[in-house]
Amino acid sequence: MPDFVPGAATDRLARQLAFIVEIDRLKRVLRRTPITDSSRRENSAEHSWHLAVMAALLAEHAGPDVNPARATRMVLVHDVVEIDAGDTFAYDTAGNVGREDRERIAAERIFGLLPPDQGVEMRALWEEFEAGQSPDARFAVALDRLQPLLVNHEAGGGSWRDHAVSRAQVVARMRPIERALPAAWPMVLAIVDANCAAGHIRADAPAS
Amino acid sequence: MPDFVPGAATDRLARQLAFIVEIDRLKRVLRRTPITDSSRRENSAEHSWHLAVMAALLAEHAGPDVNPARATRMVLVHDVVEIDAGDTFAYDTAGNVGREDRERIAAERIFGLLPPDQGVEMRALWEEFEAGQSPDARFAVALDRLQPLLVNHEAGGGSWRDHAVSRAQVVARMRPIERALPAAWPMVLAIVDANCAAGHIRADAPAS
Repeated sequence: MPDFVPGAATDRLARQLAFIVEIDRLKRVLRRTPITDSSRRENSAEHSWHLAVMAALLAEHAGPDVNPARATRMVLVHDVVEIDAGDTFAYDTAGNVGREDRERIAAERIFGLLPPDQGVEMRALWEEFEAGQSPDARFAVALDRLQPLLVNHEAGGGSWRDHAVSRAQVVARMRPIERALPAAWPMVLAIVDANCAAGHIRADAPAS
Repeated sequence: MPDFVPGAATDRLARQLAFIVEIDRLKRVLRRTPITDSSRRENSAEHSWHLAVMAALLAEHAGPDVNPARATRMVLVHDVVEIDAGDTFAYDTAGNVGREDRERIAAERIFGLLPPDQGVEMRALWEEFEAGQSPDARFAVALDRLQPLLVNHEAGGGSWRDHAVSRAQVVARMRPIERALPAAWPMVLAIVDANCAAGHIRADAPAS
C-alpha cells in the first residue's frame, strides 16, 4: 500500500489519493504561454482547467461523435506526464527530440500510481490524445491549440512574440482547429492576421 | 456582439470566447492553501483543475445518485465568481461577511458573458454548489474540503499552521466529507490527528 497517507481505508483509496497528491506537481510545470495579463507564465495545471471549461462550452461546435464528458477527462489528464517529462515548446524542434520516450516512461510511473483499472483508463485517454485520431482526441487537440491562441492574443503576442514565431508556423500549429472546430477557424485566421499586422507574429518570407 | 475577438462567426461563439478569455483571471486569485512543495500559494484555477481530476477518480465512492460528469462541470466553475469577489479564507469569519452579496453580483456579470442558455446552466451549477444540498453538490463540496486537507498535509501544515487553526475548526470544516465520501472519513481524521500531533493544527482547549 502506498505510504502517503495515514488511515486510508483501502489500498484502492490509498492509490487514488497518492495519484491526486502526486499530480499537484503539475502546478509547477511552466508553459511558454503567459496568462492573459502577461504577469507570468502559465502552468500546465491551470492550462488543463482552462481546456476543461472550454470542452464543456464548445462541444456543441464539435459534431455529434464527440462525447463531452470523455473529452473533458482527456484534457484534464493530457499533460500530467509533464511532471516527469517537462513541457516542450510546440515550436522547438530540437526540444521535441526524445519527447515521446520521456513521456512514455513518465506515463508508466504516474498512471501506475492509480488502481490498475483507473490507471489503464487514464493512460489510454492520454495515448488517444497524443495519437489525435479519434473524434474526442481531435476535439481535445483543437482546444489545446485554441487556448494558447486566445491567451497569446489577449496578452499582446505572448509566446509568439517572445520566440519570433512565424505566421506559417502558427497556422500549421492551429490547423487541427479547422477540422474539429470549423466554426472557430475564421476567427483563428483573423487573430493570426491581426497579430501579424501588429508585429507579434513574424510575417512569412515571400516565396522566392 | 462582444468586441473581444476579430472574426468570430456568430454572436454565440463570440460570447463563449469572451467568457473563456475572462476566466483566465481566475489564475490570479490566490487561496490560503499552498501547493504541496510550499513554494507558493495555490490559485483558484489550478485548485479547480485538481478538484475536477478528483471528481473523475473518486466518484465511485460517492454513491449512485452522483453524476460524475455533472459534478465535474460544477467544480470547474465553482470558483469563477472569485474573479470579482475574491477568495475568502474558510476560517475567516469577518471576511465572510458580505461574501454572498459580492458573489451574487459577480455571478451576474461573469456568467452573463455567456450565451443565455449556457449562462443559466453554469450559474445554476454554481448556485447548486453553494447550496450544497443535492447529491452532486454534496460530492463537489466534499472534494473542495478534501483537496486542501491533502495539500496542507503534504505541505507540512500549510494554511492550518500559518493561521493557527484549531482541531475543532478543521473537523467542522471537513464534516461534509463524512456524508458524501464516507470511505475517506477515517483518513481525514487520521490526517487531522497526525497534524495535531505534529503541532500543525492547534489542539482544542480542554472543556472547562
